[in-house]
Amino acid sequence: MTAAGDQMYALVERMYPLCRSITGDGVRATLDIVGEYIPLQVHEVPTGTQVLDWTVPQEWNIRDAYIADPAGNRVVDFAASSLHVLGYSVPVSRTMPLSELRGHLHTLPDHPSWVPYRTSYYKPEWGFCLAQETLDAMPDGEYEVRIDSTLADGHLTYAEHVVPGQVPDEVIVSCHVCHPSLANDNLAGIAVATFLARALAEETPYYTYRFLFAPGTIGAITWLARNAERVNGVSPALGAPPCSKSLGEEPRAGGRVKHGVVLACAGDPGQLTYKQSRRGDAEIDRVMRHVLTASERPHRVNEFTPYGYDERQFCSPGFNLGVGSLTRTPYAGYPEYHTSADNLDFVSPEAMADTLAVCREAFAVLDRNRQYLNLSPYGEPQLGRRGLYDALGGRSDTKQAQMAMLWVLNLSDGEHSLLDVAERSGLPFDTVAAAADALHGAGLIKA
Amino acid sequence: MTAAGDQMYALVERMYPLCRSITGDGVRATLDIVGEYIPLQVHEVPTGTQVLDWTVPQEWNIRDAYIADPAGNRVVDFAASSLHVLGYSVPVSRTMPLSELRGHLHTLPDHPSWVPYRTSYYKPEWGFCLAQETLDAMPDGEYEVRIDSTLADGHLTYAEHVVPGQVPDEVIVSCHVCHPSLANDNLAGIAVATFLARALAEETPYYTYRFLFAPGTIGAITWLARNAERVNGVSPALGAPPCSKSLGEEPRAGGRVKHGVVLACAGDPGQLTYKQSRRGDAEIDRVMRHVLTASERPHRVNEFTPYGYDERQFCSPGFNLGVGSLTRTPYAGYPEYHTSADNLDFVSPEAMADTLAVCREAFAVLDRNRQYLNLSPYGEPQLGRRGLYDALGGRSDTKQAQMAMLWVLNLSDGEHSLLDVAERSGLPFDTVAAAADALHGAGLIKA
Amino acid sequence: MTAAGDQMYALVERMYPLCRSITGDGVRATLDIVGEYIPLQVHEVPTGTQVLDWTVPQEWNIRDAYIADPAGNRVVDFAASSLHVLGYSVPVSRTMPLSELRGHLHTLPDHPSWVPYRTSYYKPEWGFCLAQETLDAMPDGEYEVRIDSTLADGHLTYAEHVVPGQVPDEVIVSCHVCHPSLANDNLAGIAVATFLARALAEETPYYTYRFLFAPGTIGAITWLARNAERVNGVSPALGAPPCSKSLGEEPRAGGRVKHGVVLACAGDPGQLTYKQSRRGDAEIDRVMRHVLTASERPHRVNEFTPYGYDERQFCSPGFNLGVGSLTRTPYAGYPEYHTSADNLDFVSPEAMADTLAVCREAFAVLDRNRQYLNLSPYGEPQLGRRGLYDALGGRSDTKQAQMAMLWVLNLSDGEHSLLDVAERSGLPFDTVAAAADALHGAGLIKA
Repeated sequence: MTAAGDQMYALVERMYPLCRSITGDGVRATLDIVGEYIPLQVHEVPTGTQVLDWTVPQEWNIRDAYIADPAGNRVVDFAASSLHVLGYSVPVSRTMPLSELRGHLHTLPDHPSWVPYRTSYYKPEWGFCLAQETLDAMPDGEYEVRIDSTLADGHLTYAEHVVPGQVPDEVIVSCHVCHPSLANDNLAGIAVATFLARALAEETPYYTYRFLFAPGTIGAITWLARNAERVNGVSPALGAPPCSKSLGEEPRAGGRVKHGVVLACAGDPGQLTYKQSRRGDAEIDRVMRHVLTASERPHRVNEFTPYGYDERQFCSPGFNLGVGSLTRTPYAGYPEYHTSADNLDFVSPEAMADTLAVCREAFAVLDRNRQYLNLSPYGEPQLGRRGLYDALGGRSDTKQAQMAMLWVLNLSDGEHSLLDVAERSGLPFDTVAAAADALHGAGLIKA
Repeated sequence: MTAAGDQMYALVERMYPLCRSITGDGVRATLDIVGEYIPLQVHEVPTGTQVLDWTVPQEWNIRDAYIADPAGNRVVDFAASSLHVLGYSVPVSRTMPLSELRGHLHTLPDHPSWVPYRTSYYKPEWGFCLAQETLDAMPDGEYEVRIDSTLADGHLTYAEHVVPGQVPDEVIVSCHVCHPSLANDNLAGIAVATFLARALAEETPYYTYRFLFAPGTIGAITWLARNAERVNGVSPALGAPPCSKSLGEEPRAGGRVKHGVVLACAGDPGQLTYKQSRRGDAEIDRVMRHVLTASERPHRVNEFTPYGYDERQFCSPGFNLGVGSLTRTPYAGYPEYHTSADNLDFVSPEAMADTLAVCREAFAVLDRNRQYLNLSPYGEPQLGRRGLYDALGGRSDTKQAQMAMLWVLNLSDGEHSLLDVAERSGLPFDTVAAAADALHGAGLIKA
Repeated sequence: MTAAGDQMYALVERMYPLCRSITGDGVRATLDIVGEYIPLQVHEVPTGTQVLDWTVPQEWNIRDAYIADPAGNRVVDFAASSLHVLGYSVPVSRTMPLSELRGHLHTLPDHPSWVPYRTSYYKPEWGFCLAQETLDAMPDGEYEVRIDSTLADGHLTYAEHVVPGQVPDEVIVSCHVCHPSLANDNLAGIAVATFLARALAEETPYYTYRFLFAPGTIGAITWLARNAERVNGVSPALGAPPCSKSLGEEPRAGGRVKHGVVLACAGDPGQLTYKQSRRGDAEIDRVMRHVLTASERPHRVNEFTPYGYDERQFCSPGFNLGVGSLTRTPYAGYPEYHTSADNLDFVSPEAMADTLAVCREAFAVLDRNRQYLNLSPYGEPQLGRRGLYDALGGRSDTKQAQMAMLWVLNLSDGEHSLLDVAERSGLPFDTVAAAADALHGAGLIKA
């Protein structure tokens, strides 16, 4: 696992310098790197495409940007950090006094040495982000301001990677790829998703796992628009929700997407945090709570809020998917969030390895969780003659494996899953699942 | 508000000396005074009228009553306090030894200077209530006993005041008017109801508010008998409950009365107490709990019990209305209860003003609480292009107003009200309601 | 009650020396003794009979068994205690060195002076149970080993005693009779069941009470197989569960068995423990919790687990009966459990009398618990004119009996039982039941 941690950290290092945004070549370059680890299907969606309530915007690309002081020194330079330019800045090439320039400058007075991350995707604007210290040192005078960017019809880019399972039902793992040089948010999430996909591919999982690398909000909305039938079983283009009564309350029987996790902030030193889906009791919510508790890791489980990452879209009331979000310190919960301090020192191989391990444990439970039906529900079946029960009676130290079989038999009534059995019995999920395998092998239960 | 407090106190002072009972001229005089503040529709129901399981009793009126000692001094005199006569005393004019008189005297040995309040509505009886001190000072001997009362066919009197709303659905505000010179129980309740009606009339509320000034128990029962269709949508005279299965468990879809509050003990120095309706999760229960908690007032919320004031009738299983009771110190919860110590010193303008304020806050929430349906439930709608979202991205201090819009959109699935949104989000109800207004204005949700 | 305690203890003393097992003459002798106290219907089920998933085994009987040391001394002797032989030991008559004999010896190294209780019902085996001290004192050498037992076609024996009630619906009281010389497990349970049956017979209870004295597991399974229609309303022989959807979740509408208690470990010094049925909220669960709490006895209420005594069979998902288990210290919860230390000193008349008292209190509540329907559900009926309410009004010390009537009226909506009323009101069940009787007598409620 340390090996995986180091490999994930190396991947983060490679992606760190690139200037990502919700569109543009930075995203493509990032996906190229990820594609060296796992094969990706890359999608390009043209500017102007209607996606749910939104429209795919123009594509933004940037080559250079700087502010030069009256002496000609570049005091702010995009070449030093992709954070220095307001995301989606329109091009500018002017000279102006500092007093006028100030209206386009973003700083963090409370953290004078840090550079903030700011964007203006949907309102034409230009600007620079810089340290308050830098601004304080800038003398009055005329400044040369240049942003060599283009905002033009093009494409929005996202990618998918699918690990085929035994059944077509899908688990979505989604991470946003739109943030520039921020290590924890979300290069660590991308790295964990990548290595999770590699790990899953080494076995044939029960579910089909679909990994989604897409820009935040507009990317998830684009994917949902293009995959509505996969998600919902019906296309939202067909009109209003099929039944307003059940809107937002029922899982979508028709869709293939059964569960999902949004991965973000996966590498910081904080404890793991699982934010539940809107449903709160979706199977993924129960699995994540169980695994985090059973592993005895310090952790938090938070209620759903309609803010954060792309769980906002997956859990909108029309979809209402069982999709939660796994982070370490959650969204906006650390001072380094959306600043230059979210750098390569802020994330660690150990933290990413720990996030990866919990994902693997959770998917191992999710993959094996089933409802069985006891085929011999009247009284206990005689386990002894099937070789499943100790012959010597009277002892009080009944083995956990036997207890797990009795629990599985007792609760396999068509209403309880193995996770229910584990939680009600207090037995480890692995023991319960092994008992179910033994009973299934003996023909005493059926799936 | 202090102005309102002083005005309510002045109203209490005017009503205090009158001898009220469940029928009679004292009630009429009280309603005359209230009628100077708000127009009242006064109803007179004849003696003998069948009302549900009860019969309107004979009307009781009293002109004078006293006990004169052997020396001819009036040691107990109705002219000094209406409490001195057992309510509904039959007339008497006799001389008798103290030993015989004692069987008709009611005192409070634990509070020797207080006069108790006692009645005998349905069993012909006569009696006096007096201080234990007074009784202790009465020498043996022959006493003249006189109660100049009449108990004869007449009417039961109650009154209504209606504040018309935007919809015919009604909120009932009920207070009992049958107690004699007891300030907190219930002149303070009458005063708060009166000024609440005046305050509501200054705007056009959403609901129609019906104020009911009626004697306790028999008055509420009379009103319910005459308004069964308004309450239940069907008349109980038609026979047995329509469906015993649902009896007591379902709100009445057919009736106009949707919510209600019984006001009593509204002016004492204790903290506010809301007693929940029989249903416990009726909308009025949730609103009251929310407002009391959000206001950070010290307060209590009590479970329903089938005792207290007229919530007993409104919450009988056949009606099972969403009617709770708001008091300060509740029924029988203070030593002064039903004694002469519940006098003008026991209530204050400040306490009544506080009770009035909570009622107004609660009705403001109740009036604005709605279920909306998100018309763009697949993913988030793009709030930015509608001017509802900050153009500058990346900041972590998202405004409460924006969070409220996201919450309203996320939960407007036909299952959640704005109060649900406020409680789940932790945002103030006002902020949530304002967000709903903005979204409704933008055509994103419908009522 | 002390008298009953002493009588129960005397019954335990008589049964203690017998060598019981799941079949054989020891069970018959035990039932003969019980039959001196209450009439029993004894059933003999032939070896080989199919009972649910099981087959009635061969019958086991034993006359003598011992180990004689090289000097010819009987160091382990069945005549001293029935525990010394592994239950269901096949016959053996051999001489062998201690080294070979050891594989057939069972001890408790942690309690060197105690003899364990061990069985091998379904795997042909022979063995002895002895104190570790005894084993330690046995020199090497040749030992004579003899078990004069027979294992042959015969019968499984169990007995029933029925106390007829006012209705044919049944309450099952079950206790296992298969353990040899163990006083608490389960001679105390047999004694309490016996005296409970005698006490119930002194009145005519509402329910029909069926007492079951049967060997553990195979006895309960045999009874269930032969009484499936009584239990379930349908025979499981007819095939798969009628509806897998409801399997395990619904009480069986068709069966006569409505409630039940498994009695075991009824005489040790520990506090009472009620283990809930699989349903957890079955009426018997609620009654037992209520009675134990109301009695202010120290006690425990445990969740159902599919282990312990014959609640395992009654609560298998196909039957899912409302059957809990009452013990003092529960199954395997004391060091003396299944050892020779569970002897006549371990149980007491007082403990058995206390267990008996709780059973009687619980069945008194169960027998009187009903749902009534308020025939006057619109407003309160006028209790005063029916003589059920104090004529004098205004007092704040309303009597508990009146409060109980108001509660019964308010909650008798077809959804609440008298136990619900007692729990919601906080009033004693007896007071609530008496109020219901008064209201029923006045024609205000119907059953």
